[in-house]
Amino acid sequence: MARKILILTEGLSSPHAAKTACGVIRYRRDEVVGVLDTTVPPQPAQALLEVGGDLPVVNSLDALPEANELLIGIAPSGGSLPAPMHALVLGAIERGMDVVSGLHEFLNDDAELAAAAAASGSTLRDLRSNRERDVAKRRDISADCLRIHTVGHDCSVGKMVTTIEVARGLAKRGAGAKVIATGQTGMMIEGDGCPVDAVVADFISGAVEKQILSHQHHEVLVIEGQGSITHPCYSAVTLGLLHGCLPDGLIYCYEMGRKMAKGAASVALPTIESQRDLYLAMANAAHPCRFVGVAINSRTADETAYLAERDRIQLEWNLPACDVFREDAGPLVSAVLEMRKN
Amino acid sequence: MARKILILTEGLSSPHAAKTACGVIRYRRDEVVGVLDTTVPPQPAQALLEVGGDLPVVNSLDALPEANELLIGIAPSGGSLPAPMHALVLGAIERGMDVVSGLHEFLNDDAELAAAAAASGSTLRDLRSNRERDVAKRRDISADCLRIHTVGHDCSVGKMVTTIEVARGLAKRGAGAKVIATGQTGMMIEGDGCPVDAVVADFISGAVEKQILSHQHHEVLVIEGQGSITHPCYSAVTLGLLHGCLPDGLIYCYEMGRKMAKGAASVALPTIESQRDLYLAMANAAHPCRFVGVAINSRTADETAYLAERDRIQLEWNLPACDVFREDAGPLVSAVLEMRKN
Repeated sequence: MARKILILTEGLSSPHAAKTACGVIRYRRDEVVGVLDTTVPPQPAQALLEVGGDLPVVNSLDALPEANELLIGIAPSGGSLPAPMHALVLGAIERGMDVVSGLHEFLNDDAELAAAAAASGSTLRDLRSNRERDVAKRRDISADCLRIHTVGHDCSVGKMVTTIEVARGLAKRGAGAKVIATGQTGMMIEGDGCPVDAVVADFISGAVEKQILSHQHHEVLVIEGQGSITHPCYSAVTLGLLHGCLPDGLIYCYEMGRKMAKGAASVALPTIESQRDLYLAMANAAHPCRFVGVAINSRTADETAYLAERDRIQLEWNLPACDVFREDAGPLVSAVLEMRKN
Repeated sequence: MARKILILTEGLSSPHAAKTACGVIRYRRDEVVGVLDTTVPPQPAQALLEVGGDLPVVNSLDALPEANELLIGIAPSGGSLPAPMHALVLGAIERGMDVVSGLHEFLNDDAELAAAAAASGSTLRDLRSNRERDVAKRRDISADCLRIHTVGHDCSVGKMVTTIEVARGLAKRGAGAKVIATGQTGMMIEGDGCPVDAVVADFISGAVEKQILSHQHHEVLVIEGQGSITHPCYSAVTLGLLHGCLPDGLIYCYEMGRKMAKGAASVALPTIESQRDLYLAMANAAHPCRFVGVAINSRTADETAYLAERDRIQLEWNLPACDVFREDAGPLVSAVLEMRKN
């Protein structure tokens, strides 16, 4: 049965809070039938989320009876299901809709939701639920597959979209490229991957290594980054991922004007130059690696400021740089293809 | 009821494989009544484990009927209960003994063991089982509590014993010091702590931060390190711990002659100097920090080689250095007290 996805953003319908919703709408638009938020008037998704065009935002499950899947469209720090969403999820289950969630708190662990799903025949898919129990082995890693990894200054600076745009750009130019999704939104878009931030600590690098070993028959793997190597909450995830995927090349992602760490507002971000050096040092401790490009998120900047920033970075870092939305990922794709040749 | 601990090492009775057993015998000797291994002849623990003096190693549960607790004395990579141990654990439960385990695979998740415990009234304590779900906040960290963290070149180089010896040395010299245990053996010895390597990835630093906040009324916290910042399997654990405990001072721990990473035999260890610089860079990205001393594990070296190494390190690193077993932790304790004064 074709998926007809209704995305739940209840009370959290902003491009930042509903990051998961926006990603799925952007890259799986043909499977999405609407957005559910009872706290706002019905309107086009574009007005609310800055993506989705005329995709309808609706007030009730009744408004889109053809929907057969409810997708939780948020990714809050801590990963609990917000209380206002619970009744809507239950209502969807009672209609027999499947529910897809990337939260740390599992739908299947909620007795009321699980009982309702058993009664209605709904499937509850907890993307972060995993039983990863293998440590990394650093064996059988192919030198014929180029591994490119997006790393970032902070959370929510554009690592996932850069990953997807680079992989799609490579495919368009004839290279066999595959995204290794490492977060819930990336997994919803790509259809596979590993929820690395939900893996038990000892097995983080091992879980990532398994993804590499499974997919290294592709010419290029583009591995989605998470958090940042200096993030107060998530640096462990970032390093486990870096040492699990052993990149040959890194793409640095940052947002112009970002000063404080997302989710830890009292913590200033390091300079992008000092952080770049930490990434290089930590990556090269495991595998020879260099930066191949920079993805600038310029959403808060005007065109003039963006162009000046892009020119400065290209000059000072001696690397191609671009905003993959404002322009496209072309310069990064070319840099990866160049590395592939050498 | 006083604990009378029987330590199970079945078929794995070497100082390295039975690291947990050795730690508990060394620091909780008065609560341990024996070691159970049916694969070796009865003998004193000292002969088998190089610790424990005349503590008996026995062949069956019948040999020490006074034992009221079975403690799994191993900490294998991956953390499963070895098959030969299963029947012995079941036998202990059927006698009504409690069982303590630091494995990743939980006793309580084994239907046969759980049913037997329900029948006999035994308690199954899975030390690694946790529900840590708080991200780090970097708030309310006291500047009045000195945080000292042991970090290492590799797994199993002496971080835990250095932690305990330094904390005990501080207490003897009148400083209010507390160990923050972060691994199963440390937790068995200290009686509290956090199994950091078993926490879900997003919450590693948050779990460690909670330990700091709970205990920072002490003058000095000595935080047990895990793995290494370059370990192929466990670097994520190490960095999450480093960024969760925000040390003021670090003690570097290494073993003379160690060349390859434990658990990843094809991976060469970096030089101790290059790794020291990585620790400093990553620690200082979060909080001002310096090394205060070096703990040399010289178990495979003779006295002459050890003394030469110690002198070299003290000169080249400009820090006090010692083997805490061969000598004692005095120089490290003095260095911590000196830092406390300043």
